[in-house]
Amino acid sequence: MTAAEKALELHKEWKGKLTTESKIRIDSAEVLAQAYTPGVAEPCKEIEKDPELAYTYTIKQNTIAVVSDGSAVLGLGNIGPLGAMPVMEGKSVLFKEFGGVNAVPICLDTQDTEEIIKAVKYIAPAFGGINLEDISAPRCFEIEERLKKELNIPVFHDDQHGTAIVVLAATINSLKITGKKKEECRIVVNGAGAAGTAITKLLLRYGFKDVILCDSKGIIDPDSPRITPAKLEMTKITNPRGVKGTLADAMKDTDIFVGVSAPGVVTEDMVRSMREDAIVFAMANPIPEIMPDLAKAAGARIVGTGRSDFPNQINNVVAFPGIFKGALEGRAPQITEDMKLAAAEAIAGMVSDAELNEDFIMPEAFNPDIADKVAEAVKKHI
Amino acid sequence: MTAAEKALELHKEWKGKLTTESKIRIDSAEVLAQAYTPGVAEPCKEIEKDPELAYTYTIKQNTIAVVSDGSAVLGLGNIGPLGAMPVMEGKSVLFKEFGGVNAVPICLDTQDTEEIIKAVKYIAPAFGGINLEDISAPRCFEIEERLKKELNIPVFHDDQHGTAIVVLAATINSLKITGKKKEECRIVVNGAGAAGTAITKLLLRYGFKDVILCDSKGIIDPDSPRITPAKLEMTKITNPRGVKGTLADAMKDTDIFVGVSAPGVVTEDMVRSMREDAIVFAMANPIPEIMPDLAKAAGARIVGTGRSDFPNQINNVVAFPGIFKGALEGRAPQITEDMKLAAAEAIAGMVSDAELNEDFIMPEAFNPDIADKVAEAVKKHI
Repeated sequence: MTAAEKALELHKEWKGKLTTESKIRIDSAEVLAQAYTPGVAEPCKEIEKDPELAYTYTIKQNTIAVVSDGSAVLGLGNIGPLGAMPVMEGKSVLFKEFGGVNAVPICLDTQDTEEIIKAVKYIAPAFGGINLEDISAPRCFEIEERLKKELNIPVFHDDQHGTAIVVLAATINSLKITGKKKEECRIVVNGAGAAGTAITKLLLRYGFKDVILCDSKGIIDPDSPRITPAKLEMTKITNPRGVKGTLADAMKDTDIFVGVSAPGVVTEDMVRSMREDAIVFAMANPIPEIMPDLAKAAGARIVGTGRSDFPNQINNVVAFPGIFKGALEGRAPQITEDMKLAAAEAIAGMVSDAELNEDFIMPEAFNPDIADKVAEAVKKHI
Repeated sequence: MTAAEKALELHKEWKGKLTTESKIRIDSAEVLAQAYTPGVAEPCKEIEKDPELAYTYTIKQNTIAVVSDGSAVLGLGNIGPLGAMPVMEGKSVLFKEFGGVNAVPICLDTQDTEEIIKAVKYIAPAFGGINLEDISAPRCFEIEERLKKELNIPVFHDDQHGTAIVVLAATINSLKITGKKKEECRIVVNGAGAAGTAITKLLLRYGFKDVILCDSKGIIDPDSPRITPAKLEMTKITNPRGVKGTLADAMKDTDIFVGVSAPGVVTEDMVRSMREDAIVFAMANPIPEIMPDLAKAAGARIVGTGRSDFPNQINNVVAFPGIFKGALEGRAPQITEDMKLAAAEAIAGMVSDAELNEDFIMPEAFNPDIADKVAEAVKKHI
């Protein structure tokens, strides 16, 4: 049986990966009268008087929705809300297993931006936070932006910010090894969708000055007739040296490559054209932009991928559970840039100086302390 | 500490009555790769090809949403979606504890009929059924009707149909004791909202012929200038003898009184005016339409209430968990009238002939076999 067949078989056996469970055994009329009528009327009345008390008396305090419209699922593309369910269930499982956060998969039967915004606002009372997932660009930008403005609970598009946070964490630790300074580094981000855009913004926010953003046609160019509004915005904050051309042109004499693009698009020559001690994060899934051994042979000092079977896996799972855990525990009204930077520093800090080396820049996903440490760091910046 | 204070205190301690739990311990890269990427892509692709497979590979097979807009919560009225949360959590807990059905409370931040319909349709992919709860009449009728038409999963407004089913069960067993025949019985239903309307319809469907429906002004009257469209509909199928007047007028020479109205509205004289072996179900909460001892003293042979501290509690909890359990297991596209009748018969049948007496017409809520028996009966009528 192949791994794929095994995964399918297991999904059948599991009959759904998630359950809801009562914290209370309803085994007597007395308990029933406390947890349901007539006793339940008391917290209802208190919350009606003071809506904040929903955080005291209900699951709102520790429950989020994992919301998708199924438009950009993993590498599968637009497979719709039902097709997206196994992923959103899996994500909900990870929230609970890694961060202790209750999570409910909500797959929406609409891909209209305004309707998605409405639907999420309508269901928001039951939840303490919203994790947006696998919604295609550029709609994901507006949906997140609007929901952040119009809701008073944290809204977080993990494909953007979770990825940005773990890339920043990997970058922070890579600088420690190579001795490169963030102010002097040149970075190329390949992939100008949800993840690439957020990575670029967070790297700039952290203090990098020279980031070039590429899409599948090369360096994004404000003069191109094909430029989109979202990419045009990005041209204003990237590419300070005004480089033009292809990905190969962009990578020349740079320090760091970040790929959230497509399998095999980076050649050994491109890596060879980078500065000394080059750092290559080739995160296309499941096949990286360049395989680690080739990148190393071409002179890269540090190589990371999205895969668990190579060193330096750069995986959101070390970020999102702790971020929501911290945001919920601290009752954050939203997840700010400072909270994201704090999360990245905390993740980077999980690798001790003694452990840190070219092949160990990221903490193991199964390190049981990560979510707590990330949550702690996040809470300090609420 | 009063019972109310205790209930409030417990709700604080519980920190929410419900959790989500993973069925799978994510404790190795291998399991992570099966439950999440890359393995999760397999069920996604299968479901994309055949949406029916969502029932094989996801929680859709055994998970429902408990949806409210908080407009008619218990006896508390329109306390809004946050105020309704403790009740919807409690209901979700009961679905799991009594029926083994996963349930998620969804409290909607809108009370607009069309928007509620939209919101429920948008979130439907993740769920195998929708339990509507505590939505005020007459909006609840249209919302349920439309959702039943526009969704292909069971939609069930428990305030209507759950109540109707348990009233019918109580009625079936009361007929056994009194020897009354359904074709000859005269019934008065007091309360023409969601519950009263559904009770009336199900009693007629079961085979009763003579049901008078009253609202707070008395017998509903097609000629009244204050008649609503929903009540006008009901005048067409009720009151075959064309009785006019007050509740007292309605109750004269009838066999069965069903109250889903207000505390104390039934007097001893009204009960005295009923036929011999009168059956009185006074279900206003927490204070019945007439207290059981008074009803008995006035000649009622069987008295039921909504309360657990009197004999013959008529409680939805013996119905809804088994109904959804059966509907989900049998993959019912909706919950039909025949399924409701079967559920009522099954509930009535849980009281053996040996046990059955004036003070024991309903099975105990904590009888662990009820949900399975109800589910079995329901499945036979899908």
